[in-house]
Amino acid sequence: MASTEGSKLWGGRFVGDTDPIMEKFNASIAYDQRMWDADIRGSKAYVKALERAKLVSTDEMEQILHGMAQISDEWSRGVFVIKPGDEDIHTANERRLKELIGAPAGKLHTGRSRNDQVVTDMRLWLRSAISTLADNALQLITTMVERAAAEIEVLFPGYTHMQRAQPIRWSHWILSHAVALSRDVERLQELKKRVNVLPLGSGAIAGTPFDIDRELLQRGQANWLFVTNLCLNHYFLCGCVHLTLISFTGSSLMPQKKNADSLELIRSKAGRAFGRCAGFMMTLKSLPSTYNKDLQEDKEAMFDCYDNVQAVLQVTTGVMSTLKINQTVMEAALSPDMLATDLAYYLVRKGVPFREAHGLSGKAVFTAESKNIALNQLTVEDLTAISPLFGNDVSSVWDYRSSVEQYSAPGGTAKSSVAAQVEHLRNWLKKHAQ
Amino acid sequence: MASTEGSKLWGGRFVGDTDPIMEKFNASIAYDQRMWDADIRGSKAYVKALERAKLVSTDEMEQILHGMAQISDEWSRGVFVIKPGDEDIHTANERRLKELIGAPAGKLHTGRSRNDQVVTDMRLWLRSAISTLADNALQLITTMVERAAAEIEVLFPGYTHMQRAQPIRWSHWILSHAVALSRDVERLQELKKRVNVLPLGSGAIAGTPFDIDRELLQRGQANWLFVTNLCLNHYFLCGCVHLTLISFTGSSLMPQKKNADSLELIRSKAGRAFGRCAGFMMTLKSLPSTYNKDLQEDKEAMFDCYDNVQAVLQVTTGVMSTLKINQTVMEAALSPDMLATDLAYYLVRKGVPFREAHGLSGKAVFTAESKNIALNQLTVEDLTAISPLFGNDVSSVWDYRSSVEQYSAPGGTAKSSVAAQVEHLRNWLKKHAQ
Amino acid sequence: MASTEGSKLWGGRFVGDTDPIMEKFNASIAYDQRMWDADIRGSKAYVKALERAKLVSTDEMEQILHGMAQISDEWSRGVFVIKPGDEDIHTANERRLKELIGAPAGKLHTGRSRNDQVVTDMRLWLRSAISTLADNALQLITTMVERAAAEIEVLFPGYTHMQRAQPIRWSHWILSHAVALSRDVERLQELKKRVNVLPLGSGAIAGTPFDIDRELLQRGQANWLFVTNLCLNHYFLCGCVHLTLISFTGSSLMPQKKNADSLELIRSKAGRAFGRCAGFMMTLKSLPSTYNKDLQEDKEAMFDCYDNVQAVLQVTTGVMSTLKINQTVMEAALSPDMLATDLAYYLVRKGVPFREAHGLSGKAVFTAESKNIALNQLTVEDLTAISPLFGNDVSSVWDYRSSVEQYSAPGGTAKSSVAAQVEHLRNWLKKHAQ
Amino acid sequence: MASTEGSKLWGGRFVGDTDPIMEKFNASIAYDQRMWDADIRGSKAYVKALERAKLVSTDEMEQILHGMAQISDEWSRGVFVIKPGDEDIHTANERRLKELIGAPAGKLHTGRSRNDQVVTDMRLWLRSAISTLADNALQLITTMVERAAAEIEVLFPGYTHMQRAQPIRWSHWILSHAVALSRDVERLQELKKRVNVLPLGSGAIAGTPFDIDRELLQRGQANWLFVTNLCLNHYFLCGCVHLTLISFTGSSLMPQKKNADSLELIRSKAGRAFGRCAGFMMTLKSLPSTYNKDLQEDKEAMFDCYDNVQAVLQVTTGVMSTLKINQTVMEAALSPDMLATDLAYYLVRKGVPFREAHGLSGKAVFTAESKNIALNQLTVEDLTAISPLFGNDVSSVWDYRSSVEQYSAPGGTAKSSVAAQVEHLRNWLKKHAQ
Repeated sequence: MASTEGSKLWGGRFVGDTDPIMEKFNASIAYDQRMWDADIRGSKAYVKALERAKLVSTDEMEQILHGMAQISDEWSRGVFVIKPGDEDIHTANERRLKELIGAPAGKLHTGRSRNDQVVTDMRLWLRSAISTLADNALQLITTMVERAAAEIEVLFPGYTHMQRAQPIRWSHWILSHAVALSRDVERLQELKKRVNVLPLGSGAIAGTPFDIDRELLQRGQANWLFVTNLCLNHYFLCGCVHLTLISFTGSSLMPQKKNADSLELIRSKAGRAFGRCAGFMMTLKSLPSTYNKDLQEDKEAMFDCYDNVQAVLQVTTGVMSTLKINQTVMEAALSPDMLATDLAYYLVRKGVPFREAHGLSGKAVFTAESKNIALNQLTVEDLTAISPLFGNDVSSVWDYRSSVEQYSAPGGTAKSSVAAQVEHLRNWLKKHAQ
Repeated sequence: MASTEGSKLWGGRFVGDTDPIMEKFNASIAYDQRMWDADIRGSKAYVKALERAKLVSTDEMEQILHGMAQISDEWSRGVFVIKPGDEDIHTANERRLKELIGAPAGKLHTGRSRNDQVVTDMRLWLRSAISTLADNALQLITTMVERAAAEIEVLFPGYTHMQRAQPIRWSHWILSHAVALSRDVERLQELKKRVNVLPLGSGAIAGTPFDIDRELLQRGQANWLFVTNLCLNHYFLCGCVHLTLISFTGSSLMPQKKNADSLELIRSKAGRAFGRCAGFMMTLKSLPSTYNKDLQEDKEAMFDCYDNVQAVLQVTTGVMSTLKINQTVMEAALSPDMLATDLAYYLVRKGVPFREAHGLSGKAVFTAESKNIALNQLTVEDLTAISPLFGNDVSSVWDYRSSVEQYSAPGGTAKSSVAAQVEHLRNWLKKHAQ
Repeated sequence: MASTEGSKLWGGRFVGDTDPIMEKFNASIAYDQRMWDADIRGSKAYVKALERAKLVSTDEMEQILHGMAQISDEWSRGVFVIKPGDEDIHTANERRLKELIGAPAGKLHTGRSRNDQVVTDMRLWLRSAISTLADNALQLITTMVERAAAEIEVLFPGYTHMQRAQPIRWSHWILSHAVALSRDVERLQELKKRVNVLPLGSGAIAGTPFDIDRELLQRGQANWLFVTNLCLNHYFLCGCVHLTLISFTGSSLMPQKKNADSLELIRSKAGRAFGRCAGFMMTLKSLPSTYNKDLQEDKEAMFDCYDNVQAVLQVTTGVMSTLKINQTVMEAALSPDMLATDLAYYLVRKGVPFREAHGLSGKAVFTAESKNIALNQLTVEDLTAISPLFGNDVSSVWDYRSSVEQYSAPGGTAKSSVAAQVEHLRNWLKKHAQ
Repeated sequence: MASTEGSKLWGGRFVGDTDPIMEKFNASIAYDQRMWDADIRGSKAYVKALERAKLVSTDEMEQILHGMAQISDEWSRGVFVIKPGDEDIHTANERRLKELIGAPAGKLHTGRSRNDQVVTDMRLWLRSAISTLADNALQLITTMVERAAAEIEVLFPGYTHMQRAQPIRWSHWILSHAVALSRDVERLQELKKRVNVLPLGSGAIAGTPFDIDRELLQRGQANWLFVTNLCLNHYFLCGCVHLTLISFTGSSLMPQKKNADSLELIRSKAGRAFGRCAGFMMTLKSLPSTYNKDLQEDKEAMFDCYDNVQAVLQVTTGVMSTLKINQTVMEAALSPDMLATDLAYYLVRKGVPFREAHGLSGKAVFTAESKNIALNQLTVEDLTAISPLFGNDVSSVWDYRSSVEQYSAPGGTAKSSVAAQVEHLRNWLKKHAQ
C-alpha cells in the first residue's frame, strides 16, 4: 500500500542511483586509487592465465596487455582522468580499458569475481608495502648499530621504575632497541611470506563459492594492522627515552622545540595505529561470511598504517642520525647509589647468599641516606658495622667503568659484550638485506 | 666528543628545520584548515576583549578586525593561499594577517598562548558541528515519525534471539528506533552545553599555567568521540533490521544492490568511529600534563567522526524516505507459533500462575511440532489434554490484530498506543527544534 | 538422514541440558550474585505494584515479601546456598522463594519478563555503585583541598612538554587535579540521574515487545564504562606526576618501593578499564535488537570497573594523605631559565609587542647558554645588547615568589588566587555532598 | 615543613606497608597461583644451571630440588597454604621453600632477578596453554571433517550479502570453516615456537641490565592475545551461521533455547577477548622501558583468553557433534533464482563474453520478477526474447545437483572436490597432531 504514496510523502531522493550523498558514501576511488599499479599487475597476470586456459585468444590477450600498459603509463604520468561512475580503482581501470580496446576488455573478467580481483590487488599492494617498510627499518637499524659502534665509550644511567638505576653503556641502550627493531623486521618478512600466497591458486579459474580467500585476507590485514601497531608501540619506546636523552644535552643540531615535537608526534602514532587496528577488528565483528561492503573500510586503515610507520621510521632515522649527545653531562648523571647492586655482589663474592647480601646493601643505602651523604662516602667503619665482611677493598666498587665491565656475559653491558652485539647485528643485517 | 663527528658520520639531515619529511610529519594544515572560520571568530572575540582591557588601542582593534574580515573572505571564496611554513591554521591566519596589516598583528597574541587559541577554535568548531548533527538527526526522526503515522496499520514479526517472535506494528518498530535517536539528540545537546563554556573565562587575559582547559577539552573530545560512536552503533542497529525488511519486499525505488550496500556501509562506520575513539583514548593514555604535540591527533578523529555521523544520518534519512514496503509479504511472514505467549496469557486470564501457564503453552508448541502442524491447527481436544482450562474460546487467540491490541499500555504495540507515541514524538520534536 | 547416525558417530554429548562445560559456560551466578540485594529490592517493589494492580492478593504479597526478607537475611549472613541449576542470581532467588513459600512464588513473575528483571536489578545496583564512587571521590577531593590549604607556601616547577617550566605553587598543582576530579563527580551524578529512571515505567505491567529499556540500559552501561574509563585515565594523570614528586623527597612514610608500585598499579588500571569498555562496545556491535545472551558479558565489566575505580580512589586518597614532601628539595628544583617568560613580560610592560618580546627573551636564553651561565647571571650589559629597554630593574624578575604573584587572575598561581580556589572547592564540596 | 604535620592532618594510613587496601591492590596471588607448576619447573631448571656453574653445591641443589618436589606435591593435592605476605606465586613458593629447607633456599636466586623468573614462568605456562588449545582445535577440526564426510550429499543455500545465494554442499560449508581453523592451529604452533626460546639463554647467569626479555615477552603476550582474539572472531563466524542452520531444523537433541544460547555466548567472547587485547595494548602504551608494576595486568588477560578460547572450542565441538540437521528442510530452502549465475555460464559456454552474459541473466531475473514467476518458469520464448542463444537445452540449468557439480576445481563444491578436501584435511590432521 504505502509504497507509492510513501515516496511522494518523503520526497523523491534516492530515485535512480544518482543521489550525490550516496555516491560519495559508496565510492572508494578517492583512496583506493593508490592501488592502481597492483590492480594493473594483477590483471596482466590474470589475462595470461586466461590465455593458457584458452579462455581468451592470444590476440585478445595482446590487446588487453597493451591497453593495460597504456593505462599504467597514464597513472604514472599523473594524467589518468577519473570519471563520474568510477567508484573504485577496479571500475576505473576497467572502464578505461574498454574505452581503449573495446569489446575484448569484457573478457578479462571471465571467471574472476570482483572479490577475487580486490583480494589479488590488496595482496600485491601489501607485498610491496611490507618490503618498503622492512627497508626503512633496516636503514634505521644500520644507523643505530653504527652509532653504537662509534660511541661505545659513553656511559649513562639505565632506569628501572623511573627510579633505581645502574650505570650502562649508551651504546648498549641503543642496541637493545636495535634488537627489538630486528624482530619487527623478522615479523614483517614472515607476514610477507603469508601474503605472498596467491589467492587465485594455480590458475584456478573456477574459484570457490565461499570467499575463503577473503576470509584469509581479512586475517592477513588484521595481522598487518597489528604488526604495524606493535611496531609503532616500539618506536615510541625509542622516542620516549630519547626525550630524556635530549635533556641531557644542552643543545642540538635542530631547534630544541622541533626535536621534542618530532618525538611527541612519533608517540602519538601508537594511538592512531591502535585505533585503526581496533576499528577494523570492530568492523569485522559479526560480519556474515563472504564479501560485505563493510570491508571497504579496510583499505584506508591499511594505507594509513603504512604511511605512519614509514614516516615514523624515517623521522626516527633522522633523529638517530643527528642527535647530539654530551658525554660529560651524561656521565655526570651517574651517582654512587646506582652501585648498590655492585655492593651486594661484593658480599656475594665473599660467600654471602644473594638474598642476604641484597638486604645488607639496602642497610648501607639507608645509613648513607640517614647521614645525608653519598653511598661511596660511607667509611669502612660504617660498612663493617653492617657486615664484618666489608674491608678496604670495597673502594674498588665505586668505579663506574669497572662496574659495567662486570657484565661481560652475552647481552651484557661490558665493552666486549657490546662489541659482540654490534658484530652480531652487522651479520644479521647482511642476512636480512632484501 | 661524538657530537660533531656524529653529524658527519650519519649525514647532515635535520640540520635546520627544513627536513621535508619532518615538515610534513609535523604539519596539520592539511586537515585543520577546516577550522578557518572558528579560528577567525575566536580571534575577533579575543581582540575585542584585549581592547576592553586596554591592551590594544581601538584603532589597532579595528585594523585587526578588518584584516580578519579580509582573510575570512579569502577562505570563503576558496582563494586563500597556503604557503610553506603555514604548519597549522593558526599560523596560516596569523601570517596572512601580518602581511595584510603589518605590526599590529603581533598584538593579537598578547596573553594568549597557542594552546588557548587551539582550545577556543576547537570549541567553536565543535559547537557548530554538534548543531548540524542534531539538525540532521531531527530530520531523520521527523521522517520516521511521519512514516510510522502513515503506515500504522502494517503488522510484521518482531524478533528476539533471531528466533522467537511476536506480531507487532511496523510503525512501532520504527518508533522504537526514533526514540533511541531522540536520546542521541538529547545527548548531543547536553554535550553542546558543556562545550559552550568558554575556555578563556570571563576575559581572563592572564590565564593559568596549568592547561586545565586543555585537559577539560580532551575529555570533551573523548566524550564527543564516544557519543558519535554510540550514535553510529545505533544507526547500524537501524540498518541491520532494514536489511531484513528489504528482503520482505520484492523491489525498491533503488536498485536492490545499492540499497543493501548503503546499509552495509552504515554498519561499517560503527567500527570506524570506534577505532577513532579507541585510538584517541590510547593517544591520551600516559600523556604528561599540559599540551603535548601528540594531541594534534585529536583533530582528524574529530572531523572524521563528524563526517561519518553526518553521512550516515543523511543516508539513513534517504533510506527511510524511499524504502518501499510490501504489506502483503510482511504480514505473510507472521505465523501462529508467534502467538504462543498469547496462549499462555489466555490461561493466566483463567487464573493460572504465569510460570505454569508458560509451561503449558510450551507443551502446546511441542505437541504441534510433533504432529507437524501449525500451533493454531491443534484441536480443542489436543489442548484440553494439556490443560482442562482450554475451551472453544481459544480460537480468539489466533488473530494477529487482536494480539497486538492487547498491548495498549504506554509503549505498547496497540494502535492507540502507537498513535500516542507518534503524538509524543511530534511534541518532543517541537521542543527540541533548534 | 544423517541426524540419528550422526549423534552416534560423534558421541552423545549435549544430550539433555546437563553437559558440564556448557553449564559452566552458560552460568553467571559466580559473578552476578553480587546483585542479590538489588534483585531482592526490585522484586519487593514489583510485588507491591502487582498488588496495587490486583494481580496478586494482599495475602500473597505478604507471603512474597516475607520470603524475600528471609532470603535477604540469608545472603547478608553469608549462608545462602547456591544449588546446581541456579544459573544466575534471579533463578537462585526465585528457586529459594519457591522452597520457602511454595505456589505464590510463581505469581511474582506475572507480566515481568526476565529481561525486565535484569534491567531493574542492574539499574538498582548501578545507582548504589555510583553513589559509593562519588563518595570516595569527594573524600579524595577533600584531602587534596585541605592539603593545598596547609601547604600553600610551597613552590616547585610546573612542566610543559617535559621540558620548559615555570615556578608554580605545589598547592596550585594539587588543585588543578582536584578540579578535574570535581568534574568526574559531576559526571557520575549526572549518570546517576539517568540510571534512576525506572525501566518498568509507572507500574507498566504490560511492557513493550521491544526491549527499548534494554537498549537504553546498554547505552547507560556503555556510558558507565566510559565514565569510569575517563576517571581512571585522570587518576593516572595524578599518579604520573606524583611519581616525579616522590623523587623530589628523599624519604617517605611508606617504603619507597611500595609507593612507586601503588602509582604504577593505578596507571595500569587505565588500560584495564579501557579494555573493559572496548570489549563491551565490541560485544554490542552488530547485535540484533532485543535481548541476546551475549549481553551476559556486561556484568563482569560493570563490576570490574567499579572495583578498580574504587580501589584507585582509595589508594590515591592514601597516597595524597601520607605523601611526605620536602619543601627544600622542591624549591631547589627551580632555576632561572624558568623565568624566561617573565623576562618577556618585563619587556611587554615597557611597550614591546608580545611576539617580539618573546623573541628577545629567547635571545637572552641563547646568550646565557652560549656563555654557559644561568639566565639570571647575565649582566645588564649582556641584556641591553639584546634590547636597550632592559635596565637595572630587571633584577626584580629573578624572584620566584614575585613571579608566581603575577598570576593573580582567577585560576592563577598567586597566593590570593590559590586561596580563592580553595574556598571555591570547599563550597563546591558542601554543595555536592550526598 | 609540612611533612610531619601533614601526616597528622590527613591521618596515619599507609604507615608501614600493611594498609589492607594497598595489600589487596598489590597482590596477584589470587590469580597467578595458576602458574605454580611453571614456577616450580622453572626453578628446578635454574638450580641445575647454578650447580653446573658451580654457584651452588651438588648437595644444595639436591636440597632445593627435594623441597621443590614437596611444594609441587602440596599444590597438586590442593593443600598448599597461602599466607599473608605471599603477594605472588613466586614469593609464595620461595617462602615455602625456606620453611622446608632453610638457608640454602636463599641461593636459588643468585643472579636471577624476579623479572627473569616471571618471564620464564610465563613462557612455560604459555607453552602448555598453546599445546592444549591446539589439541582442542584439532579435535574440533576432526569432528568437522568427519561430519562433512558423512553428510556429503546434503545441499543448502550459500549466502552472499545475506541476499544472493548459490546452491552448495553443506559439507563444503563445514570444510571452509575447518580450513580457517587449521590456520588458527598453524598460527598457534608458530607462536609456540617463538615462546619456546628460553629467556635466560644458554645458562646466562649474569643477565642483561635491559629487560629485553621482558620487552620481547610483552610482544609475545600481545601476540597471544591477538591470536586468541582472531580465533574467537572466527569461532563466532561459525556460530553465526549455525544459528541460521538450526532454524532449518525443527528440533534438536538439545532444548532449542540452550542451543541458541550457546552460540550467542560464543559470539560474546569475541568482544571479551578483544577487550583484553585492547586493554593490554593500552596498558603497554607509554610505559618506560624495563619492568613496571603495570605489567601485572598481563596475567589475568592471558588466563582469561585461554579459558575463553578453550571453552569456546569445547562448546563448538559439542555443537558440531550433536547438531541435528534436516536434509529436507535444507534443500527446500533452495530456489531457482540461485541459478542465475549458472544461466550466465550457459551463455558463456555459447561464446558470450562474461560481462555481457551476466547482464542478460540479470534481464531474465527481472523478467521473472515482473511476471511474478520463478526464474525456471520462464518459457524458452521468454528467454530467446532476451538472447537468441537460449535454446531448449536451457532446462539442464535448473538442476541443483548439476549446478554444484560444475565446481569441480580444487576448492569447489562438486562432490569430487569436497571429497578431495576431506582427504587433504585428514592428511593435514595427521601432520599436525601433537
